[in-house]
Amino acid sequence: MIANKRKNKKRLFDIRFRKKGKQMSGPSITDLSSIKKALSHIDTISIMEEGFIAYSNGEVVVPPVGEMLFSDPPGDVHIKYGYIKHDDFYVIKIASGFYQNSQLGLPSSQGMMLLFNQKTGELQSILLDEGHLTDIRTAAAGAVVAKHLAPKLISGIGIIGTGTQARLQLEYLSKIITCKNVWVWGRNQKNVSKFVDHFSNTNLEINIASDIQEIGEYCNLIVTTTPSTSPLLKASYIKPGTHITAMGSDTSDKIELEPALLGKADLIISDSISQSETRGEIFQARKNNVPLDNKLVELGNTLSGKIPGRQDDQQITIADLTGVAVQDIQIAKAVFKQVKNENF
Amino acid sequence: MIANKRKNKKRLFDIRFRKKGKQMSGPSITDLSSIKKALSHIDTISIMEEGFIAYSNGEVVVPPVGEMLFSDPPGDVHIKYGYIKHDDFYVIKIASGFYQNSQLGLPSSQGMMLLFNQKTGELQSILLDEGHLTDIRTAAAGAVVAKHLAPKLISGIGIIGTGTQARLQLEYLSKIITCKNVWVWGRNQKNVSKFVDHFSNTNLEINIASDIQEIGEYCNLIVTTTPSTSPLLKASYIKPGTHITAMGSDTSDKIELEPALLGKADLIISDSISQSETRGEIFQARKNNVPLDNKLVELGNTLSGKIPGRQDDQQITIADLTGVAVQDIQIAKAVFKQVKNENF
Repeated sequence: MIANKRKNKKRLFDIRFRKKGKQMSGPSITDLSSIKKALSHIDTISIMEEGFIAYSNGEVVVPPVGEMLFSDPPGDVHIKYGYIKHDDFYVIKIASGFYQNSQLGLPSSQGMMLLFNQKTGELQSILLDEGHLTDIRTAAAGAVVAKHLAPKLISGIGIIGTGTQARLQLEYLSKIITCKNVWVWGRNQKNVSKFVDHFSNTNLEINIASDIQEIGEYCNLIVTTTPSTSPLLKASYIKPGTHITAMGSDTSDKIELEPALLGKADLIISDSISQSETRGEIFQARKNNVPLDNKLVELGNTLSGKIPGRQDDQQITIADLTGVAVQDIQIAKAVFKQVKNENF
Repeated sequence: MIANKRKNKKRLFDIRFRKKGKQMSGPSITDLSSIKKALSHIDTISIMEEGFIAYSNGEVVVPPVGEMLFSDPPGDVHIKYGYIKHDDFYVIKIASGFYQNSQLGLPSSQGMMLLFNQKTGELQSILLDEGHLTDIRTAAAGAVVAKHLAPKLISGIGIIGTGTQARLQLEYLSKIITCKNVWVWGRNQKNVSKFVDHFSNTNLEINIASDIQEIGEYCNLIVTTTPSTSPLLKASYIKPGTHITAMGSDTSDKIELEPALLGKADLIISDSISQSETRGEIFQARKNNVPLDNKLVELGNTLSGKIPGRQDDQQITIADLTGVAVQDIQIAKAVFKQVKNENF
């Protein structure tokens, strides 16, 4: 049982587990600061690549998402779960958004991941990540896509949006792209300044774009990270030899790319073609009768080499990422293993 | 982060939570032995009554159950979740069955419950109950039903089945029924002996029934607790003035009561009429064209007094319990509050 021993800044909880059998041991419980420490030792980009390949190979079981909605105050809870066949674990992720939390000085997003033994059902680990692992796996997916689909020479990195994900996308791109010239665009100038400040001690040169068109003009690797419900990036802004990763739209009503831009692209990558039928940029383009079928490829199939990716440095490529459960499975497993290694 | 400090019988885990805001505190984590201790202070029967009333009043939100199936080794995982409207919490229960676990010296059932703040989404408590709270809430529901529907004078208590739930049903009935004469029937004589031994130091007098017919002959309060897929208790065995609680059938293929017995009954109680449409004894009787509609009542509506229960001591009453999520919500809340009270 847990005894609340101190009421000062750091709370200490004890938990004692009974030993019930030879195989039995208690689950590990890892809080956010330890998760961040573990992440610094994990090659998140490689584990995402492996996850997307497994997913496109049909090796991942992802049942329908569970959902609970609240009205007073408004909030939503999503339960995502699944496993890779013949793997050691299954993972359940619980994530919520209560948008009036800021009035209480609390983050609106709350979240945790649970890791279980796939062969016995035993709980192995509780990752109290408060939604951070979702942010990281999403950023790492952006880096995977850029690594495999961006043109060889990047003249400028364009970031549309200024939130947590915009920041993380740029941090993860910096791990794999040598280009230091960045253009950022955001609707809110205060948030744009915060974004610029965040990178002030790095070797990145952050420029503020006066409009979105400038992003298309100066950048050939562009990431969109907003919750926009009307198109931001237009087909006419984009030059040949550009790669665009659209991270923001993950529902049926969000859209960041003008549908005609998908029509103009040479290659369109989806992290999950089945999810693209009901959400994201591909869904929006299809709704607008833009034909895509001959150029639509699932990410894992490009990564595995089954289907070619970018053919030359003049192609326009677009990746539409709506987020798949295998990313959660991969990152939860990696954090668990890292924490376990540190402790034994 | 968790440091595994000792490898001997009791393992000690530490967890430190960052304090992020005035309202923020870490979740409590409670293991099975502490849950059992907390339960000894909880009036489980009353909280089940309140839960069933709220459920029948339409105050409980219960989304569809999440499910994952495994084949090598065979196993299943169920995620049940829901909340009472305008309450403080929402609850997620994860329960699994891996039936080859016994070969590893592990229980086949694994389980935990998670309690969250319904107004902010914050995780409040992790109850590592290993399935025990489900057993207890199921047993407590049996006691609720007996308290409200059994005839005034109980001549004998009949228990069909000898497993954990059979034992718990009798323990919970003992809290509210003064009758000490018990008849037990089980298919496996070794398990019957174990059941008898379990109660050897109590003031209950446990008799072994040579067949199920004897249960009907000597007992006017009967509980069935088996996973049988063919009827055990026949209409012809049952005398006027008997109450039967059928706990075992919770799927579309399990059945313990002959459909004609439901036809013979004066009153049939379901814990959830909507669940009874697809599983349990009521489902089976309807499949066999036994008309029930004029005598079928939802448990919460009897408990609240909206619809009368037993009318006299000659009626035959049947309660078909398939288990509803509000029971999990009620017991998780109660354990959390009890543990919190102990600590502050």
